[in-house]
Amino acid sequence: MLENIQYFAKYKENPLLFKTILEQSKEGAYYCLPDTNEADILNIIDFAKKVKKNNIALLGIGGSALGARAVYNFLKYSNKFSRSICFLESTDPVLLNASLEKIDFDDTLFLLISKSGSTIETMSIFKYLLSKLELSQENFAFISDKDSPLDKLAQKHKINFFEIPKNVGGRFSVLSAVGLVPLALLGVDIKALLRGAKEVKDEFFSCGEIYTKLISKARFYVKNSNKININCLFSYSEVFRSFNAWYVQLWGESLGKKQIHSDLNVGLTPIGLIGPSDQHSFLQLIMQGKRDKSVSFIKIKDFKSKLKIPDINIEFNEDLNFINSLSFSKLINLQADSIIQSLKANADIALDILEIPRVDEPSIGMLFYYYELLTSLVAILFDINAYNQPGVEDGKKILRSYFD
Amino acid sequence: MLENIQYFAKYKENPLLFKTILEQSKEGAYYCLPDTNEADILNIIDFAKKVKKNNIALLGIGGSALGARAVYNFLKYSNKFSRSICFLESTDPVLLNASLEKIDFDDTLFLLISKSGSTIETMSIFKYLLSKLELSQENFAFISDKDSPLDKLAQKHKINFFEIPKNVGGRFSVLSAVGLVPLALLGVDIKALLRGAKEVKDEFFSCGEIYTKLISKARFYVKNSNKININCLFSYSEVFRSFNAWYVQLWGESLGKKQIHSDLNVGLTPIGLIGPSDQHSFLQLIMQGKRDKSVSFIKIKDFKSKLKIPDINIEFNEDLNFINSLSFSKLINLQADSIIQSLKANADIALDILEIPRVDEPSIGMLFYYYELLTSLVAILFDINAYNQPGVEDGKKILRSYFD
Repeated sequence: MLENIQYFAKYKENPLLFKTILEQSKEGAYYCLPDTNEADILNIIDFAKKVKKNNIALLGIGGSALGARAVYNFLKYSNKFSRSICFLESTDPVLLNASLEKIDFDDTLFLLISKSGSTIETMSIFKYLLSKLELSQENFAFISDKDSPLDKLAQKHKINFFEIPKNVGGRFSVLSAVGLVPLALLGVDIKALLRGAKEVKDEFFSCGEIYTKLISKARFYVKNSNKININCLFSYSEVFRSFNAWYVQLWGESLGKKQIHSDLNVGLTPIGLIGPSDQHSFLQLIMQGKRDKSVSFIKIKDFKSKLKIPDINIEFNEDLNFINSLSFSKLINLQADSIIQSLKANADIALDILEIPRVDEPSIGMLFYYYELLTSLVAILFDINAYNQPGVEDGKKILRSYFD
Repeated sequence: MLENIQYFAKYKENPLLFKTILEQSKEGAYYCLPDTNEADILNIIDFAKKVKKNNIALLGIGGSALGARAVYNFLKYSNKFSRSICFLESTDPVLLNASLEKIDFDDTLFLLISKSGSTIETMSIFKYLLSKLELSQENFAFISDKDSPLDKLAQKHKINFFEIPKNVGGRFSVLSAVGLVPLALLGVDIKALLRGAKEVKDEFFSCGEIYTKLISKARFYVKNSNKININCLFSYSEVFRSFNAWYVQLWGESLGKKQIHSDLNVGLTPIGLIGPSDQHSFLQLIMQGKRDKSVSFIKIKDFKSKLKIPDINIEFNEDLNFINSLSFSKLINLQADSIIQSLKANADIALDILEIPRVDEPSIGMLFYYYELLTSLVAILFDINAYNQPGVEDGKKILRSYFD
């Protein structure tokens, strides 16, 4: 199970907070995704088995891609996937051109993911693809809201279609078809992914250990938000790079809002860091900079890696022989421990540690659900709506106005 | 030339500030790197020509790798490099294992970069390599401080060695051998890179347009640092992803410090964003969140890309036909413009725009020098030392103590 050790002031339970999140959870939304019924899961696995193409291209941006990408990058160093995947996320001309050049158009299933069914970036690339490919069941599959333009197009052309459940926003959708379909196509064990999330869900709603920890952390963050407006996630392994990006979207887009009962702008700023690399980049700022940051470390208990530092002396560098014969996995965890210890001793920063058992599907499922719950709790305390993003609409309107 | 349009309060010149930076620049350090003499540059180019291996592996972490990586990723979509490069930055066991598996040990030059000559991550990987390879001039080259353990090892074993100039710290070293040697090995035009930086240098120290802009921006940032403690760099193209990482290290590690004349912790927090992707992630927080952020946009005037959105109608999505026949380069710049306009109109955020002519060596040279100067100016105003990083030493001591 996910372990969370916290080194900041403890806050007790708040019955109203629990009542509100319990009510929210009964309305469905992302809360019930770990309980997705067996038939729906089998339907996705069955679809994945029937696809004849050996490669997947995921067309989607933001919440439509970040969840699947987080799992893919988490597992890619240790898993053998059944298909290759490429992400066509951006309309950036240089990146798009480079990605398109590598695609085998005859042997790729293009998976379009767009909640609204009319995301401008995704549709621009879709138009480009339609200049090369027939709109057929063999070439395409869609994931979108029911009754969206993509749903209608799917019906008309008999394209395989997966619905995004009602009230599940993009950044909370990784455990819905949005994440499960592309991951099933790669051969990821999506049942195990949901099982990990369900462990956290059950422990939270039955008021176990995770419940106590999440409530206390959410209350601490909101109580101190005027002073500590930046929340760093310092993940000790490269496997978390895309998970960090998922966290940044979840936290930033959910918590940067006007308050419901006032027009006050509130928000907490997420930062994703990777250890040990960012010890050589961001650590100095945490250690000696302004006291405006909290830091959550993520560690992996068992890397299952045997790579070792050989017992070799480098002349003029004899001082470093203390690391000889150490495994690289032991080294990275000791590096994390030493940074945590130095921050605790010298900087008096709000710290906590999240430790997952290993690099597998249940572990990342736990992390997803833990952060989704934390986001919901902080939003309730802030009196904001975590699930909309009204601030991004103006830019879209202005873009369109350039063409009038 | 680099253009900088600023939409925040203007601050006039401050004679003492200019006097101090002028004095600093006369002491050498990074300031004089754009004036590196022709013979030193030719020496590097000549070395690059003589190397027989077709692949480069750069062993280095933090400032030893981020600069070269920023240029490499900036150019990689449009340039043909003369060699391949891989970065062995981290001791992370999963990433390291995956990287090592891909290396052709017989046809790779391993370039070790470490200012101190005893960086633990770099030396651990070096030990691993020494278990596979002979310590010879054919296999290795070193870049380090004069008289460091690596310098001594190079002398003893006749390894090619390049010195890091005195007083040039890792994060300010991209225009020294640290950046120039690996980039010359890739066939990057390092003279053009330095020329771009020199344009900014000359315009600044002759008190031209860039001088006025940099002074005003630095003063605005410091004056408002209690309210605005986060500085976002929103770069509109994937080519800037590693440049953003370089900026994050430069800004965070230089500006997160105790003040020289007090023990007050000050600091500004850098965030790197990529457009348009992060319009679907971080934009909501900028637009409606707490007013604790400034945003600098980077745009490319001419992408030199011809990729177009075809004139294709998608049924049920006729509303989107306004983008038909538009080039993707035009679209990305219009997306940037629309976001800038919406932030100006609705959020009253401190904004500015940096526009570079195109994706080439002089353009990124300009950006490096612009940000280095800005960092130095802000540090002087904050009364901090931009060039050290005392906060990271404790962690190293604690790590070592685990083995006593």
